[in-house]
Amino acid sequence: MGEEGTAQATLEHPVLLPPGLWSLRRGSLAPQLCPGLSPQPAPHRTPPSARCHPPAPVSDGGRSHPAAPRLRPQLLVWSEQDYSDLQAKLGGCYPFSHYFRSGVIGSGLCVFSRFPILDTLLYQYSLNGYPYMLQHGDWFCGKSVGLVVIKISGIVFNVYVTHLHAEYRREKDAYLPHRLVQAWELAQFIRHTSKAADVVLLGGDLNMHPEDVGIRLLRGWTGLRDAFAEAGRFEGCEDGCTLVPNNCFTVKSELLPFPLGIRIDYILYKAISSFTVKCEELKTTTGPAPGTDIPLSDHEAVMATLRIRRQGQAAGATLGTAEPSLVDVVTEARTEVGAGLQAARRQRYGAGRMAVLALLLLLLQAAAALGTLAGLAAGQPFPKLSFSLLAFLALAVLLLATGLHLFHTMEVKMLQGTEEQMRMVLRALRERPSDG
Amino acid sequence: MGEEGTAQATLEHPVLLPPGLWSLRRGSLAPQLCPGLSPQPAPHRTPPSARCHPPAPVSDGGRSHPAAPRLRPQLLVWSEQDYSDLQAKLGGCYPFSHYFRSGVIGSGLCVFSRFPILDTLLYQYSLNGYPYMLQHGDWFCGKSVGLVVIKISGIVFNVYVTHLHAEYRREKDAYLPHRLVQAWELAQFIRHTSKAADVVLLGGDLNMHPEDVGIRLLRGWTGLRDAFAEAGRFEGCEDGCTLVPNNCFTVKSELLPFPLGIRIDYILYKAISSFTVKCEELKTTTGPAPGTDIPLSDHEAVMATLRIRRQGQAAGATLGTAEPSLVDVVTEARTEVGAGLQAARRQRYGAGRMAVLALLLLLLQAAAALGTLAGLAAGQPFPKLSFSLLAFLALAVLLLATGLHLFHTMEVKMLQGTEEQMRMVLRALRERPSDG
Repeated sequence: MGEEGTAQATLEHPVLLPPGLWSLRRGSLAPQLCPGLSPQPAPHRTPPSARCHPPAPVSDGGRSHPAAPRLRPQLLVWSEQDYSDLQAKLGGCYPFSHYFRSGVIGSGLCVFSRFPILDTLLYQYSLNGYPYMLQHGDWFCGKSVGLVVIKISGIVFNVYVTHLHAEYRREKDAYLPHRLVQAWELAQFIRHTSKAADVVLLGGDLNMHPEDVGIRLLRGWTGLRDAFAEAGRFEGCEDGCTLVPNNCFTVKSELLPFPLGIRIDYILYKAISSFTVKCEELKTTTGPAPGTDIPLSDHEAVMATLRIRRQGQAAGATLGTAEPSLVDVVTEARTEVGAGLQAARRQRYGAGRMAVLALLLLLLQAAAALGTLAGLAAGQPFPKLSFSLLAFLALAVLLLATGLHLFHTMEVKMLQGTEEQMRMVLRALRERPSDG
Repeated sequence: MGEEGTAQATLEHPVLLPPGLWSLRRGSLAPQLCPGLSPQPAPHRTPPSARCHPPAPVSDGGRSHPAAPRLRPQLLVWSEQDYSDLQAKLGGCYPFSHYFRSGVIGSGLCVFSRFPILDTLLYQYSLNGYPYMLQHGDWFCGKSVGLVVIKISGIVFNVYVTHLHAEYRREKDAYLPHRLVQAWELAQFIRHTSKAADVVLLGGDLNMHPEDVGIRLLRGWTGLRDAFAEAGRFEGCEDGCTLVPNNCFTVKSELLPFPLGIRIDYILYKAISSFTVKCEELKTTTGPAPGTDIPLSDHEAVMATLRIRRQGQAAGATLGTAEPSLVDVVTEARTEVGAGLQAARRQRYGAGRMAVLALLLLLLQAAAALGTLAGLAAGQPFPKLSFSLLAFLALAVLLLATGLHLFHTMEVKMLQGTEEQMRMVLRALRERPSDG
């Protein structure tokens, strides 16, 4: 990638990214992109900010952090009203914002910016867990990626914000195929929509450890670089962790294998055309928010200072050269998606079988009822109550199993589609070994 | 748009579009994009083809049209197996294809091409009717837009295929807001993904009459041009109609107000960079497929001959100049989406109220049951059966109404999101009146 080493033909554009893009994630009232270096630490998931000359006066009288007083664990889920509150408070400093709605109960994603938002697009991932996993609830939140286009000093920035499906059991992660589909769709969406951009920024809770196949796939397939790995200076939680044990919102037992915590929130970037991006500094928040005894959210915020320079000739597409092992990564991801496909097919089959059994039971009951009506069992009392209850039960199972069967049919289709896309990409990569 | 008048600096690229892109739509086994001018008429929804020098030998012995023998009305819905059959039959002439899966029971979209498909992306529309409208079923089919990228003689083509929500009652079209959201998302998707393309082609069953607000919105916001309106020569059904009364699959009563039929299948195109596109000829199929007494599908196919020329200077973005009345169109669309939003809010409220009533009934029943257990109604017989049935009924209504409430909540969110995007665009257009 080595953009830093490129001779800079012109230096008239050492662009300082604005203290202006905030993005909120589900469950955390957490500014996410480019928070200003305001007097109080900027909250969560916080991609590229920089040298924010006028410190962002986010706060006001009785509520020095827009969200802090409401960040009691039982009040973690924020709503559109919180966005409106933030919009009112941030309006003076961050006059531009966009709210991406998503999901049934999802709070969506939002971005606050000092610079006009020229255009937006929302892409909803095709898979996002299971509706019947109520205890996890990701399905109902509707995960998606939002794109906002801004222009600063004539440079076009495509800023992407997202939040992928959570990982609940790392040793046996049932959601890995879905998260991989999301990572793949995210990468494809970025590749297809960023072709006219000068700089691409991605910020979000990717719910993947830095070495996970999904993040390698995302980075390899888009050429995006990890601000933490590239930062000239770093300040914050050790190893750049964003989910840390000493955060009072964290479930401590989940982090037992990772005493320092884990890094699952990222700022990724790349320059597309004749620009270079360099991460000068990366920071995470630590400890409680100033003036309170609780942190701003359940994850630590990430803030990056990026320097963008115009250079003489186009940097060229980084795709394929960013990761010499791209073929291996796509192959690995495809294997995992294939495993998910097998599991989805089994679940579809199981649900279908259950539906058929329930239907058979209903038919049997219908036959028994007809037999009784025809007087075949005269003399024996007909158990109306238990009969009705059983019929209702069978009907409920039939409906539920049919719904599940249809759901898993859709899951199979989406996994198949992704697997085929990956196969197509692998074929292309292998046919052009010099590029990949 | 006046691209025709542009001086052509170089003429080395009078590109003839390939007899190579076929796309299938739900319910019709119908090649959709760029069918070759094969000996038999190419079936449905058929964007840009041209001058297909080697006629595409799609047919074989006993089945001269890949789908014709299966096109009995009761067999209209095709499946992935049909795609595989077509792939096997077309492989010699159209070796490249892609199948976009979608929806629970949706047959998806597919494209056949003589030229390698370099990349693909699927975008699923956020709204697509209602799951409880089983008689229409669009919701279960999952409408989406598929993008395939191909390169011919060094020219990059972004080819989009889609199928929007059907219109069932034109005089009171309950699906208009959803179709407008789809048209808007389609336009946004094309705008954001086509920036590196030289030529953009869109083919599909848009389920909109040429003068409808949705098609004006799509064309105005993307700068796409209608091949029918621009064609130098036309041959086929009168007025370019694609849903015609003398097709045996057509429900005649629906076309009573339109004796000639309606034109709802389109080929739209534009050149993005330094190219011009000209539609030399447009054709639709007519009458039955050769050798049979039935047509190839329920809609007539559309085939366009496009000539692409390289020109000296970039044609420039056509957005905003294509439709001087863009502000009016977006305003009109926004009004319709706003009306849909009001309706969705009412439905959400109705479903919520129904859920609360069912919950109250359940609570009342629980109180009555507890009262009986406590011996308050001693001496009176407790009607177990009707009590159980009522409880089940209340539970079923509660679950159903809750599900509906959640569904309409999501609908409200998506309509709100689109309305806000339109508002943003209107503000931008009004601030730059010279562009728009």
